[in-house]
Parts: sequence; C-alpha cells; structure tokens
Amino acid sequence: MASLELRDLIWVGIVAVGHAFQLEQAAAIVGSLRRKNGIPPPTMDGPPEFIRALRAQQNNLEFSVTFEIALWTSGVFCHQAPAAMLGVLYLYARHKYTKGYIEDAPKRVPPFWLSMYALRGLAGLSIAGLIHAGLREYAGVNLVTMARERIF
Amino acid sequence: MASLELRDLIWVGIVAVGHAFQLEQAAAIVGSLRRKNGIPPPTMDGPPEFIRALRAQQNNLEFSVTFEIALWTSGVFCHQAPAAMLGVLYLYARHKYTKGYIEDAPKRVPPFWLSMYALRGLAGLSIAGLIHAGLREYAGVNLVTMARERIF
Amino acid sequence: MASLELRDLIWVGIVAVGHAFQLEQAAAIVGSLRRKNGIPPPTMDGPPEFIRALRAQQNNLEFSVTFEIALWTSGVFCHQAPAAMLGVLYLYARHKYTKGYIEDAPKRVPPFWLSMYALRGLAGLSIAGLIHAGLREYAGVNLVTMARERIF
Repeated sequence: MASLELRDLIWVGIVAVGHAFQLEQAAAIVGSLRRKNGIPPPTMDGPPEFIRALRAQQNNLEFSVTFEIALWTSGVFCHQAPAAMLGVLYLYARHKYTKGYIEDAPKRVPPFWLSMYALRGLAGLSIAGLIHAGLREYAGVNLVTMARERIF
Repeated sequence: MASLELRDLIWVGIVAVGHAFQLEQAAAIVGSLRRKNGIPPPTMDGPPEFIRALRAQQNNLEFSVTFEIALWTSGVFCHQAPAAMLGVLYLYARHKYTKGYIEDAPKRVPPFWLSMYALRGLAGLSIAGLIHAGLREYAGVNLVTMARERIF
Repeated sequence: MASLELRDLIWVGIVAVGHAFQLEQAAAIVGSLRRKNGIPPPTMDGPPEFIRALRAQQNNLEFSVTFEIALWTSGVFCHQAPAAMLGVLYLYARHKYTKGYIEDAPKRVPPFWLSMYALRGLAGLSIAGLIHAGLREYAGVNLVTMARERIF
C-alpha cells in the first residue's frame, strides 16, 4: 500500500490554509464590531448586529473541527481533487453564511445548508476512501481495480 | 526512518470520522431543542434542558482539538491500534456525557472522567511515540529493538 | 516529489502535544475557579475573574484550529524547524495571554498580539511551502534549487 506523498496533499493544504484565514477573519469582524460599539472584552452583550456576529463566528468554530477532519481524511484516503473542490464550496458557503447572518438572522439559513451539503459530500468521500483502504489492506480487495476491469 | 504509510492511518482515520459525526450530532441536538422550544438563533437563553445541551456541545468542542491532536500524534508516532481503541473509548464516554448532561447536570460527571482517562491514555501514547522517534532520529537509540533484545 | 517522513514531523508533533496540554490547562483553570466560587455547570455567570478566565479559554479555543492548520501545513510543506520555533513562541504568548487576562483584562493585549505575530509567521511559512510544492509539482520549477544555484 502507498505511502503518503506531499504532492497528494497540496490542494487540500491550500484549502486548509484558506479555512484558517476565514476563521481569523470572523474573529476580526467581531473585534471591529467591539471597537465600533465600544464593547471591550470580556463583555459578551451588545446590539443585535454584534450578537449575530458573535454567533456566526461561534457556529463557524463549531463546524471547524468537523470540516478539517472531513477535508483531510477525504483528501488522504480518497483523492485531493474532489476533496479540495468540496472544501472550496464549503468555504464559499461559510463566507455567505457569516455575511448573511450579520445582516439578518434568516439570511444565514440557505448558505448554512449549502455548507452542510459540502460537508456531507466530504464525509461521503472520507467513508468511501476509508472503506477502499480497509478492504485493500485487510481483505485484499481493490475496488478501484475491480471497477476499472469491469468498465474497460 | 520510515515514511508515513496510508495503511498505518486507517483505524485512526475511522475514529476521526466518527468524532466528526459525533460533533455534528451534538449540534443537531441543540438545533432540535431550539425548534422544540421555539428559540431561534441568535438567542442563547431558554429552559434548563436547552442550556445543558448547549453546555454539553460546548464542552465537546472544547476538548475536540485536544482529542484530535492526541489521536493523530499517538497513531502516527506510536501505533494506530491502541490509539484507535482509546479513541473509541473516548467517543463512547463523550456519547454518555452528552446524553447524561442533557438529562441532569450531575450525570455528566462519571462519563466526563472516563473521557479524560481515555484522553490521558492517548497523551501518554503520543509522548512515548515522540520520545521513541526523537531518540531514534537524534541519538541513534531504538528503544523498541532494545526492549526486544532484552526480552527474547 | 518526496513522501512524508515521520522524522520530518517530530518537532511539530511535540509542539502540537504541548498545545493540547495548554488547552486542557485553560479548561482546568476554569474548573478550579468554578469550585473556588461555587459555580456548578451549566452556570456561565460569576465574579469578574471567572468571566475573564472563561473568555481567555474561549479565545484560546477560537484560535486553536487556525494554529493547528498553520503549524502542520508549515511543518509539512515548508520545514519543521522554523514551524516548531514559531509554534513555541505562540504557546509562550498564549500562556502569558491566559495568565494576564485572568489578572486584568488589559494585560491580555500585548501577549495577544505576540501570538498573532507567531501565527502570521506560521501562515507565511505555510503559503511559501505550498507555493514551492505547487510550482515543483505543476510547473517543474524548483525555487530552492534555483536559489542555491544563484547563491553558490
């Protein structure tokens, strides 16, 4: 079975760094709303816009570990190309989510579900990749080779 | 020294994906209690059951990064078999923790400590694995070979 | 292109485990302030010192995913030595941040910015490493070899 190659992680690495920047940007938005409204930490209360920005940031964080797990396991065990594409879709959806939520709470809903579809796609790739790797390692069955032989 | 092999990460990958699903499930429980009690985001206040579900989810998140670090470093530098077993124990304890906490606050305590024991076990494996890798790389000492030669 | 070697991840692994311990320590400080002030979970209100400890822990968590991404991508795609050094600087800054914040809110500011400089340094290494890996893989351009040939 193959060893992990740096070349197979480049696109997933780029998406992960983009995710890190996005998480920091959400923190920066909260910080700038703190300054604008004169709400020094550790105060967590303020005008509705500030509360919504806090909740948007918190929700991004709640899903950040799940996203990183799904991104890397799908990139490593399945393939980086679809993993990175779904990762970019997730980041786009989260960008719309944060922007929409700060404007008005209901605007968070459609991009939230888009981000969940991207996440479920990544989870599907992860599970498919892990099943393939497990069958290859422990049962000597190579699903990819079998599929190719049937098709070509 | 060895390169990282995909086959040595399968079980740890499966546990990580299980962890991702567990984190999402806790978010889904909070979401369903929001709908049941009519508490739309960004509101964070509600009946005691809702508050306890929020806190359970938050505590799972607080430990999620620590768990992922301990899981992967122990799996990579020590061995995936004990890492994955302790990982499953952690996920079981966190499942009981979330369920118990939502029922009644004191019910969170025994599974919390079980999850901490699993986490400490993983941290121990990580440290042992890193010491082994460090001595092998920088001092030319192979603790595993030495142990084998003494025993056999 | 090279496969991922365990030896190239040792120092980054050590810093990651140190980070995991630091996150747990912040949780333990909040727990001990809960006991000292008689604030059982799920209560989130209490004296100012307790609120500041909660916020310090929360801020550490907010940046934990960003830090882990930056640490591992810089260690994997650039080099573990500068990544681990900036990682230690980050952990030192976060230690001062947590301690300072619990004493008095303004004391959190200088170590917060130090932690941000360390994080930006890591992000810079990540991006440099990813550009290098991408050019090498997709354009056949090796920036490191080119730089050496110009210099020596």
